[in-house]
Amino acid sequence: MKMYDIITKVKRGEPLTREEIRETVFSYTRGDIPDYQASAFLMAVCLRGLSDPETAYLTEAIADSGDRLDLSMFGNLTVDKHSSGGVGDKTTLIVAPIAASLGCKVAKMSGRGLGHTGGTVDKLESIPGYCTSLSANEFISQVDRLGIAVVGQSEGLAPADKKLYALRDVTATVDSVPLITSSIMGKKLASGTKNIVLDVKFGSGAFMKTPEDAEIPAKSMVTIGKACGRRVSALITDMDTPLGLAVGNSLEVKEAIDVLRGVGPEDLREICILTAAEMVSLAKNISSDDAIVLVTEALDSGKAYTKFTEWITAQGGDGEALKNTELLGKAKIYREVYANEDGYIHSTDAELIGLSSLALGAGRAKKSDIIDPHAGIMLNKKRGDRVYAGDRLATLFANDESKLDEAENLLLRAYRFSECKPEKQPLVRDVIR
Amino acid sequence: MKMYDIITKVKRGEPLTREEIRETVFSYTRGDIPDYQASAFLMAVCLRGLSDPETAYLTEAIADSGDRLDLSMFGNLTVDKHSSGGVGDKTTLIVAPIAASLGCKVAKMSGRGLGHTGGTVDKLESIPGYCTSLSANEFISQVDRLGIAVVGQSEGLAPADKKLYALRDVTATVDSVPLITSSIMGKKLASGTKNIVLDVKFGSGAFMKTPEDAEIPAKSMVTIGKACGRRVSALITDMDTPLGLAVGNSLEVKEAIDVLRGVGPEDLREICILTAAEMVSLAKNISSDDAIVLVTEALDSGKAYTKFTEWITAQGGDGEALKNTELLGKAKIYREVYANEDGYIHSTDAELIGLSSLALGAGRAKKSDIIDPHAGIMLNKKRGDRVYAGDRLATLFANDESKLDEAENLLLRAYRFSECKPEKQPLVRDVIR
Repeated sequence: MKMYDIITKVKRGEPLTREEIRETVFSYTRGDIPDYQASAFLMAVCLRGLSDPETAYLTEAIADSGDRLDLSMFGNLTVDKHSSGGVGDKTTLIVAPIAASLGCKVAKMSGRGLGHTGGTVDKLESIPGYCTSLSANEFISQVDRLGIAVVGQSEGLAPADKKLYALRDVTATVDSVPLITSSIMGKKLASGTKNIVLDVKFGSGAFMKTPEDAEIPAKSMVTIGKACGRRVSALITDMDTPLGLAVGNSLEVKEAIDVLRGVGPEDLREICILTAAEMVSLAKNISSDDAIVLVTEALDSGKAYTKFTEWITAQGGDGEALKNTELLGKAKIYREVYANEDGYIHSTDAELIGLSSLALGAGRAKKSDIIDPHAGIMLNKKRGDRVYAGDRLATLFANDESKLDEAENLLLRAYRFSECKPEKQPLVRDVIR
Repeated sequence: MKMYDIITKVKRGEPLTREEIRETVFSYTRGDIPDYQASAFLMAVCLRGLSDPETAYLTEAIADSGDRLDLSMFGNLTVDKHSSGGVGDKTTLIVAPIAASLGCKVAKMSGRGLGHTGGTVDKLESIPGYCTSLSANEFISQVDRLGIAVVGQSEGLAPADKKLYALRDVTATVDSVPLITSSIMGKKLASGTKNIVLDVKFGSGAFMKTPEDAEIPAKSMVTIGKACGRRVSALITDMDTPLGLAVGNSLEVKEAIDVLRGVGPEDLREICILTAAEMVSLAKNISSDDAIVLVTEALDSGKAYTKFTEWITAQGGDGEALKNTELLGKAKIYREVYANEDGYIHSTDAELIGLSSLALGAGRAKKSDIIDPHAGIMLNKKRGDRVYAGDRLATLFANDESKLDEAENLLLRAYRFSECKPEKQPLVRDVIR
């Protein structure tokens, strides 16, 4: 089998066999296929697509390109959650302990963020003492004992994805459904979890701009995950406006704790209940409605919060800082931003708010950038709120005065006003099972 | 301008500007764009296409990537001919001296062959003493004096094409109309000629299988050539069956001499008259019909043959060998191949005959192979001939006994018999102007 013939087949829309796809992925990972042939292959996939069986073969091949974590000792109870990424998205910090408090096994490997704000691992690292790397044995044993462990992505898992993603990133071949699906689901397969809940976002702060756009990769990931023997659901959720009021790493940790203590923002609580219920429904094979009841009870009783503190302290995080969140630390300077006009807030553009938080130091523009854990934004007013000129819209936090002007400018551009109260839209638009 | 954005535009079918295309070609030629980005670009072009203006910009950029030969001192009289390549295609050896004998200026750079048989340069090198490399001054001065010079492709002309073609060859991005057009026409623009006649072949021995397939690149090359200020015609010609009876380098030189002396095969004479007439019609701005009269007269009077000997001897070729073609040399061994059945020859598959000649040593399977100038095939019977079992179909020539069996096997597979005489098809199906 020659790579030239594989590229030709994809270019002509002829189906590839399982063997051809596996050999392509393994040979490229070993370095036996040059980048220039791999990029021609990726562009042909982008423009010609792959069938569901081909995408499943590609997903399996990526999973098989390195180690696979064995979680079989936990039976069907293992559950993972993946978000396509958004601004102010701290749901993992909330839904993972909820699910664990209800008997699920959450053995989660999470990524660092590139873009507006940090990823889950960056948020967790803003907690003093929290350790994001455990040995495989420590990881499994903590999941066994507490039902939850969250660490950084292991280097040994799905190395093909890392190499392919780096090439896609420089050859304009990122936005391809089969490539997105196989990248995400390949890593999830390798991480050994049985049940997977996907949160696929749409809106200004997401890659996909409409619910219809988001459904395409969501359906593909559900189909391929099932074809590879997993139980998978996908929630299609709104990311036109940031989730909750906090944007930035330690600010988001505080807000997650608020939700776990019953005092967080309603939109964030709502999406967390629905996401956690989907996780519990899959892992425990119960109805969604029953799962919602259990999840709500876990939140309201404090059971989920207790699980959260057990988890964070087990991984070295400062337990006192969880009780007294002032101890999480804060930025040296802040600036309050005020409304210039009266009206209803028609939109709070998630992308612009994300860029504002990036300008403050809360995210990474490039991989080598260092995140400021305390930088970020607390919103006082969001879409649908009534405001008068002079009302405080938000507070910016930074450790460098020079960053405030750009951030304020971006933030103000995110706010659009109208005379009428905008219609309320449901956060979760659809669930694909 | 970033290469990433250029690739994205092509992928989305958004038009590129002249500046973007030129910068892509020049940067890649300089080595400032990595192969993996160039191959993603090429695959996107393959699958998305380019508009006529974009193809013209790409063609110009390829021409401008290196030196350009200045032939302006010859006014509108310069004319070149390009064939898409076929089996037994020795037309350049005949049409170039015809055109020169009628006052055209044929300053031709020709390629070496990869595949069934050699290219024009390989055929010329089978003439003892012929030198295929001249300095720019010698080249121009010979064109000025004799109206004709034929040399190998200069390294300094269109270096972008060389680099792009090498990448296309290993990334399955050869068969793209805008890439084919810009490659061929880019080299022709750089070589400075004002008028260009293209011979685009279809059939089993050609890249395009039907006349309709061949018309697509032909029309594109005519359109782009005109957009770049040249006069261009394209003949759509039949390559289901080899041209003439000789296949192989020195065998084809002998047959070309036969045509110039008025004793060659009729099909070869016919296509040469029409091709040469097209060249003369463009360069001298006269009608096709008038040009056909002039060309026929040049052939029949011996004027073209005289020009041929002047040209070959000017470049060091042995004049005696042109008069007594035995002196061109011949292969050490031969094998006659006989018909096993009675009937009409329904087809003589050009591709299989080409592969047979390749097996004998007349062509190159890979660039580094060395051509045997005397190996090849003389056909005795061709499509449309009546044969009886035991009649000689062809004679194989080689310098290595071990090559004969495979070649005979391939040759016999090329012959298909039928009970009825097949309908005669015109060799030139269409002329696109």
